[in-house]
Amino acid sequence: MHYNLCFIGFGNVARSLVRLLERKRDLLKSKYDVTYSITSIATGSHGFAVNPTGLDVQQALEKAESGKSISPLSTFQVEDSIAVIQKSAANVMFENSPVNTQTGQPALDHIRLALNLGMHTITANKGPVVHGYRELTALAESKGKKFRFESAVLGGAPVFSVMREAFPLAELESFKGILNATTNVILSRMENGETYEQALAYTQKIGLAETDPTNDVDGWDAAIKVAALVTVLWDEPITPQQVNPTGIRGITSGMIDKAKAEGKRYKLICSAEKRDGRIVAGVSPQLVDSSSSLYGMMNSSTGVTFRTDVILDYSISLSEKPSMTGGPEETAYGLFADFVSICEDAVQ
Amino acid sequence: MHYNLCFIGFGNVARSLVRLLERKRDLLKSKYDVTYSITSIATGSHGFAVNPTGLDVQQALEKAESGKSISPLSTFQVEDSIAVIQKSAANVMFENSPVNTQTGQPALDHIRLALNLGMHTITANKGPVVHGYRELTALAESKGKKFRFESAVLGGAPVFSVMREAFPLAELESFKGILNATTNVILSRMENGETYEQALAYTQKIGLAETDPTNDVDGWDAAIKVAALVTVLWDEPITPQQVNPTGIRGITSGMIDKAKAEGKRYKLICSAEKRDGRIVAGVSPQLVDSSSSLYGMMNSSTGVTFRTDVILDYSISLSEKPSMTGGPEETAYGLFADFVSICEDAVQ
Repeated sequence: MHYNLCFIGFGNVARSLVRLLERKRDLLKSKYDVTYSITSIATGSHGFAVNPTGLDVQQALEKAESGKSISPLSTFQVEDSIAVIQKSAANVMFENSPVNTQTGQPALDHIRLALNLGMHTITANKGPVVHGYRELTALAESKGKKFRFESAVLGGAPVFSVMREAFPLAELESFKGILNATTNVILSRMENGETYEQALAYTQKIGLAETDPTNDVDGWDAAIKVAALVTVLWDEPITPQQVNPTGIRGITSGMIDKAKAEGKRYKLICSAEKRDGRIVAGVSPQLVDSSSSLYGMMNSSTGVTFRTDVILDYSISLSEKPSMTGGPEETAYGLFADFVSICEDAVQ
Repeated sequence: MHYNLCFIGFGNVARSLVRLLERKRDLLKSKYDVTYSITSIATGSHGFAVNPTGLDVQQALEKAESGKSISPLSTFQVEDSIAVIQKSAANVMFENSPVNTQTGQPALDHIRLALNLGMHTITANKGPVVHGYRELTALAESKGKKFRFESAVLGGAPVFSVMREAFPLAELESFKGILNATTNVILSRMENGETYEQALAYTQKIGLAETDPTNDVDGWDAAIKVAALVTVLWDEPITPQQVNPTGIRGITSGMIDKAKAEGKRYKLICSAEKRDGRIVAGVSPQLVDSSSSLYGMMNSSTGVTFRTDVILDYSISLSEKPSMTGGPEETAYGLFADFVSICEDAVQ
């Protein structure tokens, strides 16, 4: 089976994915008899390119990374992402446009269009998961295609696929975890004596936090991840607004020192519980002591503990990166794993 | 699809599995259109029973649990496990006879026979995994059946299925973890002031360690789990003898106190690494500090961290049980999950 691939968004993660696909090209062929071409790319600020017989991938990477337009690689003129999707002749679209927590756009429209054109759709973007899970899943099913998003939470490490494949007929009762790396790095560094401002500046310097850190420090990134988990794992749509997060701006160095003296730590805890059919979800800074599995989760490490009716407190966690950054390679692997699982399903 | 089930071994885990199957009967029907009958049971010391149209499950449970023979439930006379398998008319055999770390018997013979008779085979027993993985997997494949063993490591919590389903085309580089609960409870209690003898006696009292604790405290249980992970995940057969474990008998209260004063803890560390195509595996007590994800794993909690070429340090862990015991219900769920995954495959 040959797959034509369409890339909407061509930032760090998408380019890491291209490199990973190239590195695993022989394995894809030998293990699943899968070959692929990248037929179309839409970038944020370096143009658009479509070639239904396959773009020159190395040239596209070089151009995008040296700040040049990829448009000269195109066999015909395209002016926007929508046209790229329409003319891509693709079987699979990777949607990696910037996250919009409020509306899920433009990813939502991209995925709708691609599914309607008969493509499988894969995204690392939490927006369309939270704002369109039921609709997009139903649309995908009606087209005999898949809508997958392994990388939306825990940056590419398997979470959704574990709950889908490895917990058959289990009932999820609750989950609890640390899902935002930036705030965890800030709290860890404050415990080591830095002020909030110093710690925040550090996360910005290494590229973990954005210039406007609101999304991280006020808990919105954590809240949209909680919303994505609730929406998918319980099939109960919920918005980040309903999660109504409390961030870490109120945590002072004095509070952290006092906690430390008592053997405790503040963590930005993400949690949700289903009780009597009703879901209670939240994000807020909480004190944990050393009896908690979250206590030892420092710096950029993240993780989540699932309680089900069959297995008590099963945890998945991702250790801190040497670089402390989000790890575009790992997020790229989540997208890749979604693609391979689609290839596998097609073989069966 | 209707499945006839054969139970070889009818201890705590097998009986928990029967209860779990009964509890999930309606879900199996509604989600996979699967029904089942238990047509045959071989117990260790309460007889054998076969009824190709289905045994009375409640009666079998009651008899076994009140110490009575189940043989009166049989529609014809059977004298041993082999005959039970042969006459079971089963589609799936659950093998839960006692573990033999040296030979894998008699589980190995039971599984061979069942596969040759065209049954899927599922076991929580590490013996046949370590001593027969390649042979049994090849035999199963030649018969179009499955050989599954999710519960062999980490007591029913998904590990093998995660690595099989959620890490496609990933290359495992190493793993490291705590896989034996008994030794972890002993080391945790020694840190709180108990002597080795007191802590060991506690684990025996709660039914976690056996009267002869050699298997746990000398590292053999950990070693066979390491061997099972290596054998399956790298498809490289290795025996517990080759893992050559060092147990915890040499760890004194004095050593633990000294470590504690330095902010460290002894843990019985299980590890394996593939380097230049060669596998190095071991089990030994090692000092870890609070920067390690294993540091916070206390009492009966267990877990393992996998390093792959695509995701750095992905950990799976199981929190300590309130009861501290191994949790037959969780092990039963691993067997159940294997069964459901076989049902799922049959539907596709």
